[in-house]
Parts: sequence; C-alpha cells; structure tokens
Amino acid sequence: VVGQAPAGMSGDGALQLAAEDLHEALQDPLLGALGFLNEVMARYPDAISFAPGAPNPALLDELDVAAQLDRCVAHFARSRGLSARAARRMLFEYAPSRGLINDLLAEALRRDEGIDVPSDAIVVTVGAQEAMLLVVRALCRAPDDMLAVVSPCFVGIAGAARLLDVPVIAIDEGEHGVEVAAVEAACRRARAGGKRIRALYVAPDFSNPSGTVLGLDARRRLLELARREHLVLIEDCTYGFTAAPDAELPSLKALDATGHVVMLGTFAKLCLPGARVGFVVADQVVADGGGTRRLLADELATLKSVVTVNTSPIGQAVVGGMLLEAGCSLAALGRMRSRTYRHRLASLLDALDRHLLPGAAAVGVSWNRPAGGFFVRMRLPVPVDAALLERSASQFGVLWAPMSSFHVGGGGHDELRLSCSYLEPAEIEEGVGRLSRFLHATIRREDAHRDAPTGR
Amino acid sequence: VVGQAPAGMSGDGALQLAAEDLHEALQDPLLGALGFLNEVMARYPDAISFAPGAPNPALLDELDVAAQLDRCVAHFARSRGLSARAARRMLFEYAPSRGLINDLLAEALRRDEGIDVPSDAIVVTVGAQEAMLLVVRALCRAPDDMLAVVSPCFVGIAGAARLLDVPVIAIDEGEHGVEVAAVEAACRRARAGGKRIRALYVAPDFSNPSGTVLGLDARRRLLELARREHLVLIEDCTYGFTAAPDAELPSLKALDATGHVVMLGTFAKLCLPGARVGFVVADQVVADGGGTRRLLADELATLKSVVTVNTSPIGQAVVGGMLLEAGCSLAALGRMRSRTYRHRLASLLDALDRHLLPGAAAVGVSWNRPAGGFFVRMRLPVPVDAALLERSASQFGVLWAPMSSFHVGGGGHDELRLSCSYLEPAEIEEGVGRLSRFLHATIRREDAHRDAPTGR
Repeated sequence: VVGQAPAGMSGDGALQLAAEDLHEALQDPLLGALGFLNEVMARYPDAISFAPGAPNPALLDELDVAAQLDRCVAHFARSRGLSARAARRMLFEYAPSRGLINDLLAEALRRDEGIDVPSDAIVVTVGAQEAMLLVVRALCRAPDDMLAVVSPCFVGIAGAARLLDVPVIAIDEGEHGVEVAAVEAACRRARAGGKRIRALYVAPDFSNPSGTVLGLDARRRLLELARREHLVLIEDCTYGFTAAPDAELPSLKALDATGHVVMLGTFAKLCLPGARVGFVVADQVVADGGGTRRLLADELATLKSVVTVNTSPIGQAVVGGMLLEAGCSLAALGRMRSRTYRHRLASLLDALDRHLLPGAAAVGVSWNRPAGGFFVRMRLPVPVDAALLERSASQFGVLWAPMSSFHVGGGGHDELRLSCSYLEPAEIEEGVGRLSRFLHATIRREDAHRDAPTGR
Repeated sequence: VVGQAPAGMSGDGALQLAAEDLHEALQDPLLGALGFLNEVMARYPDAISFAPGAPNPALLDELDVAAQLDRCVAHFARSRGLSARAARRMLFEYAPSRGLINDLLAEALRRDEGIDVPSDAIVVTVGAQEAMLLVVRALCRAPDDMLAVVSPCFVGIAGAARLLDVPVIAIDEGEHGVEVAAVEAACRRARAGGKRIRALYVAPDFSNPSGTVLGLDARRRLLELARREHLVLIEDCTYGFTAAPDAELPSLKALDATGHVVMLGTFAKLCLPGARVGFVVADQVVADGGGTRRLLADELATLKSVVTVNTSPIGQAVVGGMLLEAGCSLAALGRMRSRTYRHRLASLLDALDRHLLPGAAAVGVSWNRPAGGFFVRMRLPVPVDAALLERSASQFGVLWAPMSSFHVGGGGHDELRLSCSYLEPAEIEEGVGRLSRFLHATIRREDAHRDAPTGR
C-alpha cells in the first residue's frame, strides 16, 4: 500500500511509511480506543458528554496566573536567598530535571500524611503520566520484568509500558479494588514462567475507571505481599482528594515502612490540568556498589533529562503558588474543590435513581455507588461497543466511555463509565434523561431482537 | 550490596534496589557524564562557566507572562470563534495531544521558509527533547532498526534512543558537518549486517556541540542519499536562528520534495526555556491499508498521549503570544535575539585571540571560528577529562564541557566545548583570562611531565 503524497509533494520517490512499519505501541488497541473516543466527541460537540474525566472548568475561572507566579517567585527568593530578579528568572530559564517546587511538595506530604521524605526524593513531572513512564522505565528491564496493572485501569499506565516494550499483565479487580490473593497468584505464575512481576500499578482511592476504594485492611495486606514478593507498588493518588473528610484512608505510601511504595500524584485533577505538573515520590535507596548514596528519585531525574529535560518552571510556579496559598497542603487545596465533585457525584447518582432505578434491575441495568472520585460504572445487558456509542451520540446526544477501553486483558464488554466531573448539575440532569431514553430504546430493541424468531 | 535504609525506615525487610537491576539507560556513560558536569557546576557556583548551552538570562527579563497569555487567548477567541471566557479556559484545561498553537507554527513555517504543511502535521512537544523521543519511538522498531547520529552530537538524542532500547550508531562528522559518503557507508554496513538505519539525526545549522554548518550542496546530496536509502532525516533546527541574516541557508525540510525530513524545533533557545515548548513537523502520510489518511504527526500525537498527554497550554500560550507579537514569524522572533548571540560569540572569539592566539598553535591549542550558534570547539594537547575539569574549576575558577560527553561512539578526548550564550561580555573576558591561565599552567605542567625523565 502506497501513501498518498501530501499536497505540494511529488509522488516520485516519496518516502513511504506503512502503519505496520511503525512501532508496535501504535497498534495498541487501548490507544486506538482512546483515539476513537476523542474522535466521536469531536464529531458530536453538542452531545452531553459523560466521557471526559477532566476537572470542572468552572473551578478554573478564578485563577490569576500572574498572582500565583508572584507568590511562588517570592517563595523562591525567600527560601533560596535570591534577589527578586534572580528568583523571577527561575521561571524563564532551564531548571533542574528534579524540579523546583520539591520543597513545597515534601512539606505538603509531611503535613497531610506524615510522609517524611527529603525534597530530593521527589521528582516533579509533566503530569502523573510522565511519572508513570519514568518509573516503569527505571524498574523494568525488559523482557523478563513485567508490570502488573489492576484491570480495568487508567489507560496511560498500560500505554506507557507498551511504548517501552514492557510486558503488562492484567489482574482483574474485585468489587473493592485489587484482590491481594489475585496479585499473589499472578506473582507465583510469573515466577513459574521464569518472569518477574517487578511492580504493580494500583490506584487505591476511587480508581479510574471503576471508582473502587481499597480498604485499610487490604492496603496492609497488599504491603505485606509486596514485602514477601519484592514487589514495588506504584501508587496513583490522583483521586484521593475527593474523599469526604471523614472517609479518608491513609495512602499506601503513608503505611509503608519498608520502601515498597513509589507514589505518584498530579495537580491536574486537584486544581489545574493546564499546568501539566505531577510528581513522583521515590525515596528508595539504590545501591551502586561504589558507596555513593543515590535515591531512586535521582535515577528518575536522569531518565527525565532525556524525556522532557525539566517540567516547565512556569507551570511549576503556578501550582506552587496555589499550594502556598493553601498553606502548603495538598489536602487543603483539594478540599477547596472536593465538595463540588461530591456534589456532582451525588447529582449523578440521584438522577440515575430517579430516571433509571424503577425497573433497571429487571432488565439487567445496574451501577455502583462510589462515595468519591469522578466515575460511576454501569453494567448493561447488551454489548457496549463502538457501534453502541455511535448510536448513543447520534440519536440521543449523550456520550460516555465504553469500559472495554480500560481493560488491558480484555473484558468490560457490557459496561460503560460515566464521569460527573466536567458537567454542571443541570447538564447532568439533562444527560441522564437522554441516557435513560437511549437505554430504554436500546434495551427494548435488543430485547425485541432477542425475542424475535431468527433463522438460527 | 545492601542499600542503607532511609531515615525513619526500618532496615528489616526493606526493598533493596541495586543500580544494575535498573534499566540500562541509567548506566549510559553519556548520561553519567552529563550528571557529573551538572554536579561540578553545583560545587563551584562562583566559577565562570562556559558549560551551559542556555539562553542569555538578561534576554528573559522583559517577559510579561500575563500580557503574552492575553495576546494568545485573544487569538484563540478570534481564530476559533470562542467567547473570551471559553478562550481563557483553554489555558487551564487539558488540550489535544497535538497542541494548541499549531496554526501559528504552520503560518510561521510558511512565512519564514515556504514550508507548506497543514497545521495538523505539526505536534507541539515538551521541548525538542520530547519530539526526539516520539520520532525515534515511532520510526524504530527495535532491534533491527537503528538510529544514526552525527558524532559528536546533542546528548539528548542518544539518551532518548538509549531509554527506548534503540541501537545508535555514530557517524563521525567532518570539519563541515556530516559527510554524505560516511552516511552512505554506514547504511551499507548496516544492511550487510542485516540491520537498517531507519533515521539520521542531524543539526545542519551551528550544531551543538561543534558549531558546524552543513553547506547547501551537502544538504542537497544528503537529501538525495535519504531518497536512495529510504532514510528519514531528523532535522534539528534549534540554532538556525543565530545565523547572520545574509548567511541563512534553507533547512533540509525546505529543500525536501519527497517527505524524507522530519523537522524538530524549540522555543527554548529562541526565546524561552521555561515554557518547555518545542515542535515536530511530520507531514508524511502513513498508509494503513484501510484507506484512512493518517499523518506521521497523528502517530506522534498518539505516542505523546502516553508520554506527557499534552504540552502545557499555559506554556504554549506564552510562546504563542511571543510568536504573534513577532508577526507570526520564528525568524523575526529569532532576529530580536540573534544579534546578542553573535555579539557574544564575537566577544568570545576576540578574547580567545587576544589571550591565547600568540603561541597557541606552537603548543597544540586550536579552536574553530563558527559564524553562529552558541559554541566554540577547542582542541588541547592534553587529555580533556573529568580530572582536568575539576582542576580548572577548583584552581582557576573556570568551567567548560569536555567534548567526550557528546561523543556517542567514543572520541573527543582532547577537546572541550565553550559556550558563549549564557555569559555577559565582561564575564567572557574574565573567563577567557582564567582559561588562559589554566591552559598555560596545565600545558606547561604536562610539558614538564612529558620532558621529565621517567623510569619507563
């Protein structure tokens, strides 16, 4: 197959690129599914979309970038003994790969969770996504090292591993998140096959996409297993801030006494996607045989120097200013917004109850009731695929995400994900109304098909 | 070897990480050398440093971030028909992986170089570094696909390949940059060994570290070779803007009629390192067998979605505002600063002449005289290694970069790189004075050693 030459280019001798001659990651079905979802959203801009797991845009309107930059620059000057001009230049110059606001993050971790790490054990990354890439790259020496993920899970972790040619194995989660016995069995199976599960990616708090929360006892047992199996737990804390104040659980990192947890976080959901700032806490000591004390964070910073060099100092300073404004507490920064998200989630669950609950169980429609996070997981009695999404968008003006897009090992073919974060209550109400009409039409039609006599 | 447990952590059952059990990229000598250089600079903060290839900080002092954001937001509103609030929200929300200022970049490429690509053939990246990672990943399916680099070269390209486990072969450059015959020979050798050189990384304008410029005829011959060998040329345009207006040469991309060039650029050297914004131009059509017209840029954007998701919209809008201010011309934006760099380079060359020229040749000290870029390459009659750098810093208060740090295939052990970009003329003068005293002392001492009777 020969590519069509772009406009203005002679076909003669043109470079020919075939999809199958590019890297395998590009043939990944999960990345393809994500692309399809974005493409459908672009084609139906007027649909109400429960698809994007993005922060509520109304929460961003108040942001004064210049004021936050000034606040962080003043901190740079104070904490480093710099002149105002030298501190301001820090925004505009190259910065250390490790980051500029590491001290603020270390202080926040201490204050919020009693996690006591030196600031140089933190690397500031371009969102949690880059942190995932760096951690998987550092820990996994392909091909015998594998990354385990809880399935369904955030697509970005599997995508990063795919890009790095690191094998991924999926561990199906239960109703309350990852099941420790399943992880143990997977480790055993890997060992029997001459492989090693080097790390497990887990989001214990209102995970994306399923909204599950790992209980305190399960967290402790998972840490014990990590110790027995020499397993690194890559803990993604993205949605922890949405918990009600009386329902917060300690992070795996806070419970970890033996250095088995590498913690990832991001400011994207907490306060500002547009800064593209996340971080990784990696205070594990790396023995190099020469007596030099290096931290895993040092190694991650070295890798980062050939991925993005450093995270934009401007982006770091905007969220640094917001963190300072919140008294150097990620929890306080989160609390300013988490009430909105719990309110949206309650609106969504309430609308689902009113529009769908009567009769839902009878036709095989059900959903979970998370107490936090952005997402509700819904099961349908019909296949949830691209065709169904297309019909929902074109005929009913409502969008959602097929859960199969989040299943690394296959699965989720009768489920969808509804996100409440991006919509206003009135949109949620109208959207659930449309969803209800869509489901009534679809399931009745499927029933009709099922009941109709067929040739088979 | 067992790692020392971090403070507050019981040694019992602690996770043990050994350097050799982490990914091979971390053992890369080039990345190690870079780390050493940064570490020496940190230890001698008062030394005059010719090491950093960073833009002059005084050129950054005038920047008004809020004004540039406003300018770009007004463009978003105008060009997309958005309300002021909706346009402003673009700064703070997630953005498409492909980028937000692609239209401005496409316009600039058309205006500056007559390069006519649709804006969706451009991906905005976190500096040119991320662009390198994405391009190498898309094009190279390890282990038979290799990346060729001109050696010495920018460390970031070799580092990105190393992180991706893509084999790198070094092609030594001549006095006027890469030699086409050497590339051809390398392609032949690779083929004979059952491998394929998939792409060649080349910086034709004042390359880092050697300052060479590839002549117009060599550019044309390199393009012909690329066609014959089905080779992608990864063209790094970072330093092109420093050319004197009457000495500008067309980029490989501008000369390319057959889609063999993928062009990388960055705003980091041009105007603002702190934004961390670069771009890649990849208008090659990828045939997928299904009749869908996709561009290489689409594939790069997909890969980017699992590296950094998207480039910070705030960062994009700051440089977008600067680009708009310069009449949507990268060349005009560059011209506002290139005179400063040519002046710094002239100061450096003049100081070298005055302090070193008398007698330099006699003792085997020489340097090149580039007409642009940030760098001068100097040859010494003694080994240029970490010990020499340490002595230069500690005893003479002057820093530079050993050229061996930029040689992928080994080499450069008698050379160093001097960068003029970061220093003011008075610092250059003082720094060259120190360098002169250092060289006089060092070379005399080495001579003394050489002349002294030894037991051998």
